[in-house]
Amino acid sequence: MTDSHALPLKDALRQACREIEASIDALLPPVPGDESLLIDAMRYAALNGGKRLRGFLVLEIAALFGASREAALRVAASVEFLHAYSLVHDDLPAMDDDDLRRGQPSTHKKFNEAFAILAGDALQTSAFEVLLEDATSADPTIRAELALALARASGSAGMVGGQVIDIRGEGKALPLEKVKRLHAMKTGALIRYAAEAGAILAGLKADDPRRQAIVRYGTDLGTAFQVADDILDTTASTEELGKTAGKDEDACKSNYVSLLGIEGARKEALRLSEQARQSLSFFGPRADTLRALADYFVERRN
Amino acid sequence: MTDSHALPLKDALRQACREIEASIDALLPPVPGDESLLIDAMRYAALNGGKRLRGFLVLEIAALFGASREAALRVAASVEFLHAYSLVHDDLPAMDDDDLRRGQPSTHKKFNEAFAILAGDALQTSAFEVLLEDATSADPTIRAELALALARASGSAGMVGGQVIDIRGEGKALPLEKVKRLHAMKTGALIRYAAEAGAILAGLKADDPRRQAIVRYGTDLGTAFQVADDILDTTASTEELGKTAGKDEDACKSNYVSLLGIEGARKEALRLSEQARQSLSFFGPRADTLRALADYFVERRN
Repeated sequence: MTDSHALPLKDALRQACREIEASIDALLPPVPGDESLLIDAMRYAALNGGKRLRGFLVLEIAALFGASREAALRVAASVEFLHAYSLVHDDLPAMDDDDLRRGQPSTHKKFNEAFAILAGDALQTSAFEVLLEDATSADPTIRAELALALARASGSAGMVGGQVIDIRGEGKALPLEKVKRLHAMKTGALIRYAAEAGAILAGLKADDPRRQAIVRYGTDLGTAFQVADDILDTTASTEELGKTAGKDEDACKSNYVSLLGIEGARKEALRLSEQARQSLSFFGPRADTLRALADYFVERRN
Repeated sequence: MTDSHALPLKDALRQACREIEASIDALLPPVPGDESLLIDAMRYAALNGGKRLRGFLVLEIAALFGASREAALRVAASVEFLHAYSLVHDDLPAMDDDDLRRGQPSTHKKFNEAFAILAGDALQTSAFEVLLEDATSADPTIRAELALALARASGSAGMVGGQVIDIRGEGKALPLEKVKRLHAMKTGALIRYAAEAGAILAGLKADDPRRQAIVRYGTDLGTAFQVADDILDTTASTEELGKTAGKDEDACKSNYVSLLGIEGARKEALRLSEQARQSLSFFGPRADTLRALADYFVERRN
């Protein structure tokens, strides 16, 4: 096992990606028999590429606080299961109706709608299952806290709630405050969770100032990610994105670009990234990869 | 709070039903604002009637082992959230395409497909959230064990896996062993969980013979329930069921009736119910309501 803190960001990301996919592969092995097709659909959705930024956040922050890499890889896989489930359901015809995901047929196109619904359902379940197994932590308080925080980040007060606000906002001009809240729930909560989960896994309590600094970092990172996503949705091609570009404009959705303009959105992304870096002032050079990650979040091209 | 063990089964069921619905109502209160419609859809799905047999099992077994009623009502609500999510997704057009549920429009008919998908998703999340909150148990080992067992009962190796086998079996003649396995996963696992959860909540360890007896009871009850369901699907009207009758025959599904005949299925249901009763021999008269419940499971008319 290499210490990824010694690597430049791109190498660290690449290595983490490999390790996270190996962890997903091991936690969700193919099975024989009648339910094989369900597992195949779950694996298709969970192993179909992706930058693994959420999983990487878990790994980096777990390492910062000295948690075991093996356990952190389980938590990273769990966050990626949760993320994969949300993408599978978001792509369904009744939702965003998107045939492409990461340049490949989305799960309901590759399998069918019923299997996509069920694979998403079971991926959500797997996310909790993996967190709650003894191998994640010998301490049941930590297992329960990891799973409770995931539920809060991803349910009606988090990711799914944000998705509902997003759907209801289509075709309407939303004020900036509402767009901020929507994205803090829809994408921000899970990114923030990924950061906090690394600290929870390492045993840091909720009132520990180091954990609170990480939560601030994760919160700003999540917002920066969404602002950058809105910029990419406007400026990048479908080919570059591996998913349909220009979707917000097509759906008449208010986003950071429609509200702030491209230049205003770029400035906001940089401000958030800088603010995220400042939350790391506690940690000295060991957090350099996390600092580089804050830059990467706003500079990415897909 | 009345001791439901002193009541005849029907009264105990009615009282539990009221308490479980109050618990669901309190755990999932209506909210103002943009996500109100999501919560409305979740409440519609979770509060839309139902016999609350799973929640009742939790309450009765928790009471048998002296767990607090307040905590048991949280676990009962959680099991009902999980069950409600499965019904909402099962009714979707891409799945069973059923417009009726408990005599009312199913969730995607009352709201729309996107909201039904998201409400189901968030109900699953809520099931885990409620179990993992401190109010369910001061002991994190118990909270984590309750949630892990729920994940195992409801994911790819349990409920969702069984649903997949069911879908893949449509139009095919399945052997009895496969039908048994399908239902043990699709409906049995959650009923068994409901029983075991009462014992977990009361602090009984997995190797405690009393918990093992309850697991055997819950397993037989789950199978008896499905056999009775197949009998009702053949013999009862849509009006009596509050959902579409004759669905298995329409979908050319193998079930206990097609494999054993009506009389054979009735005998099997009685055998299972008797076997479930025998698992309770440990517990003396305090388990009389659970004994009556085993009879009720096979005698019910809807």
